[in-house]
Amino acid sequence: MDKVLAINSGSSTFKFKLFSLDNEAVLAEGMADRVGLDDSTFNVELSNGEKHMAKIPVPDQERAVEILLNTLKEYHVIDDFSEIVGVGHRIVAGGEYFKDSTIIDETNLQKIFDLKEYAPLHNPAEGNGIKAFMKLLPGVPEVGVFDTSFHQTMDPVHYLYSVPYKWYEDYGARKYGAHGTSVRYVTSRAAEMLDKSADELKLIVCHLGSGASITAVKNGKSYDTSMGFTPLAGVTMSTRSGDVDPSLLQFIMEKENLSMDEMIEILNHKSGLLGISGISPDMRDIKSHIDEKQAKLARDIFKNRIIRYVSSYIAEMNGADAIVFTAGVGEHDQDLRESVMKGLKIFGLVPDIEANKENGEKFITKIDSKIQALVIPTNEELMIERDVVRLAHLKA
Amino acid sequence: MDKVLAINSGSSTFKFKLFSLDNEAVLAEGMADRVGLDDSTFNVELSNGEKHMAKIPVPDQERAVEILLNTLKEYHVIDDFSEIVGVGHRIVAGGEYFKDSTIIDETNLQKIFDLKEYAPLHNPAEGNGIKAFMKLLPGVPEVGVFDTSFHQTMDPVHYLYSVPYKWYEDYGARKYGAHGTSVRYVTSRAAEMLDKSADELKLIVCHLGSGASITAVKNGKSYDTSMGFTPLAGVTMSTRSGDVDPSLLQFIMEKENLSMDEMIEILNHKSGLLGISGISPDMRDIKSHIDEKQAKLARDIFKNRIIRYVSSYIAEMNGADAIVFTAGVGEHDQDLRESVMKGLKIFGLVPDIEANKENGEKFITKIDSKIQALVIPTNEELMIERDVVRLAHLKA
Repeated sequence: MDKVLAINSGSSTFKFKLFSLDNEAVLAEGMADRVGLDDSTFNVELSNGEKHMAKIPVPDQERAVEILLNTLKEYHVIDDFSEIVGVGHRIVAGGEYFKDSTIIDETNLQKIFDLKEYAPLHNPAEGNGIKAFMKLLPGVPEVGVFDTSFHQTMDPVHYLYSVPYKWYEDYGARKYGAHGTSVRYVTSRAAEMLDKSADELKLIVCHLGSGASITAVKNGKSYDTSMGFTPLAGVTMSTRSGDVDPSLLQFIMEKENLSMDEMIEILNHKSGLLGISGISPDMRDIKSHIDEKQAKLARDIFKNRIIRYVSSYIAEMNGADAIVFTAGVGEHDQDLRESVMKGLKIFGLVPDIEANKENGEKFITKIDSKIQALVIPTNEELMIERDVVRLAHLKA
Repeated sequence: MDKVLAINSGSSTFKFKLFSLDNEAVLAEGMADRVGLDDSTFNVELSNGEKHMAKIPVPDQERAVEILLNTLKEYHVIDDFSEIVGVGHRIVAGGEYFKDSTIIDETNLQKIFDLKEYAPLHNPAEGNGIKAFMKLLPGVPEVGVFDTSFHQTMDPVHYLYSVPYKWYEDYGARKYGAHGTSVRYVTSRAAEMLDKSADELKLIVCHLGSGASITAVKNGKSYDTSMGFTPLAGVTMSTRSGDVDPSLLQFIMEKENLSMDEMIEILNHKSGLLGISGISPDMRDIKSHIDEKQAKLARDIFKNRIIRYVSSYIAEMNGADAIVFTAGVGEHDQDLRESVMKGLKIFGLVPDIEANKENGEKFITKIDSKIQALVIPTNEELMIERDVVRLAHLKA
C-alpha cells in the first residue's frame, strides 16, 4: 500500500505524520524531540492507539529520518521503504521565490538554504531534513510546502511597509505572513461547508494557536494578513507581542541596556499573554486565573486585537461571507469565540450561543447572521499530503 | 482690551497666536524659526494682513519671548504688557501625570521637564518657553495644554502593549497618543454640527496632517487612538512609518549596519510617503506625480492604513455617528476623502461626491448615510486659548 509522509522540522524538533495514499488515513504519527541535545527522545503513535517512546540520541535531522524509517518498519507500519511514494516538508520561509508548494530538486533545496536569513532557526533544519530523505529514499519525490506561499497573492499595498522602498528592493523587506498551509486547509473546508466555490467567497481566517494570525481570504486567495516580515507582528500571541511602536523598543533598550537581539528575543518569547499576565503563555492557564486582574487583562487584550484585525479586513474586502476559527484556542475556547463574535455585531454577525458551546467542525452563527462564523479544526499535515499527491502526480 | 497668547514651541521653532479675550479674534500670529541657529528669523502677521519678517538672532526660547513681546508693542498690537492676561502652551508629552490642561506652577513646570524622556526634543523647549513667560510676565497665568491628556481616558485594554507588564509599571511603557488638542477641538465642533451633545456621540477623528492619527471618541472621550508610545506608530505619515514588524528593524539594522537610534531616525524622517514614493513627504507633490508607480503606491498605502484603523475603531465602539476629516490633508485632499469614504461602504457610509468636491467646514455624506462624514478645519490654538480662559477663570 502506497504511503505519503508529511514532515515538520523545527530547530530542535522533527514531527511526522504518515498517510495512506488510498484514503488519507493517518497510519502513524510522532516526533523526535530535543534534536541535537543530550536527552533527545523519539515518540511514535500508531493508528491502533499504541504509543512508543524511546530515549535515543538524535544528533541531527538525518539521524531523525533514519530512526523514523526504522521505527516504521519495526512496528510493521511499512514492510518496505518503497511503500513511501512521496514526502512533503513544511518550510517556514519561502520568500518571494516560492509562490506555491513545489517538488524539491538540488536548485530548490539550495534556495531553501539561501532563504535562511528570513527564518534562521527553521530553514536550515528543514533543508537538512529534505537532504536526509533525498539520501535515504533516493528517487522518492520531496515536496516543499511553504508557510508563506499562500500569501504571495497579496497586493503591494497590503504587503509593503511605509519604510524606504530601497529596503524592499535590496533585501525583500515586506510582509510575508505565515500559517499559509493552515489557512489554505480551512479555506477549502469552509467552501465545502458553505457549499460554494472558494473562488466566490470572502473569508476571514482566525488561526489562533500559540502563534496567532488573522487572514483575509478573497476568492480563495490571501488578500491581507496580520503577520508581517516575520511571525512576530500582528495580534497578541502566547509569548509574542504582535504590533508595538518601534520607539518603545528604543526607549526600553536604553532603560534596560538591551541589544536589539535581546529585545527581539523578549518580544518573541516573554511577551504576549505571558508578558501581560505574568502567569502563563497558555490560554487555558490564563482562563483558569481569570479572577486575577492581569489574567483578565491579557485575555481582553487578545480579544481586542483579534476584533481590530478582523474588522479591518472585513472593511478592506467590503464584506465577508464567513469568519473561521481554527487552531488550539480557536477550536477550543468557546468564550473567546463568543466575545469575538459579539465584538463584530456592527457587521450583522449573530452568534448562535448554544451551537458555540460545543467544539468540532460546525457553524456557530444563527441562520440569519449576515456573516457566518465557523469552527474548523485545522490540518496542516493533510494539506501537505495533498500537495505531495498533487505535485508528484500520485494516484491512489 | 484683554488678550490671550497661545504658544507652540518646537525644538527650533516658536509659534504664537494672540487672541482677543472678547471675541476669540486673532490679533496677530507668527513664529521664530531656526531658534538656536545662526540664521534665525522672526515673522509676524497682523490682523490687517501686514507681514513683517526680521533676520534676528534668537538664541533660545527666552529671547524668542522677549522679541515677541517687543514686536507686539512695536506694531501697536498691544500698548502695554498688562493686556496679556493669560498664556497657553502646547506641551507634547504629559505622560500619565497630566490628565487635563492645567495652570503651571513651579511643581508642574518641573514635572514637564521630568517628562522629557517621553519627548526629548519638545518638552525641554516647551518648559523653557513657560519659564521665560513666568520671568517676563510675572503674575500672568501660564497654562499647559498637553497633546496626550485627551487620551488619558483610554482603557488599559487599548493603551497597553503585549509586552512584559513590568515595563509599564517601571517606565510607563504604554500608548499615550497625540493630537489630543486637535481631536478635542473637532469633537466639540462636530457635536455642534450634529446638533447633539458630545456625550452621546461616537466619532472617529482622522487628523491627517504631516503627522496623522485616527482616534475613536466615545461620549466625548478618547476611546482608542492609532499613535502609540510616541507619534511614530499607527498609520503611514509624511515621513513616519507608522506600524512596522519589529523583526524587520533588527534585520535591516544588521544589513545596513545601523544603530537603533539611527533606525528610529530613519523611521521618523525618511519613511512614510517619502520613503515609499522617493518623491516627497508632501501629499500635494505625491498627488501631482500620481501617474508614477511609486507615488500611486504611497497614496494607496496611506488610504489603506486609514481605512484599516477607522474600521477597527467603528467595530470597537460598535458603531459611529460620524467620521471627521481634519488637518492639512484631511481638510484639502478631496480625492483622498472620497476613497476613504468608499472604503467604508460596508458600514453604510454613503459619500456625497458633490459636497465633497469643496473644502471648508461641512457634511460630505448623503442625508441617508448610516455614518455621517464631516470636514472640520482644526484649530488647536483656539482650543489652547479656551483652556486658558477656562482654567484661569478669565471673563471677556
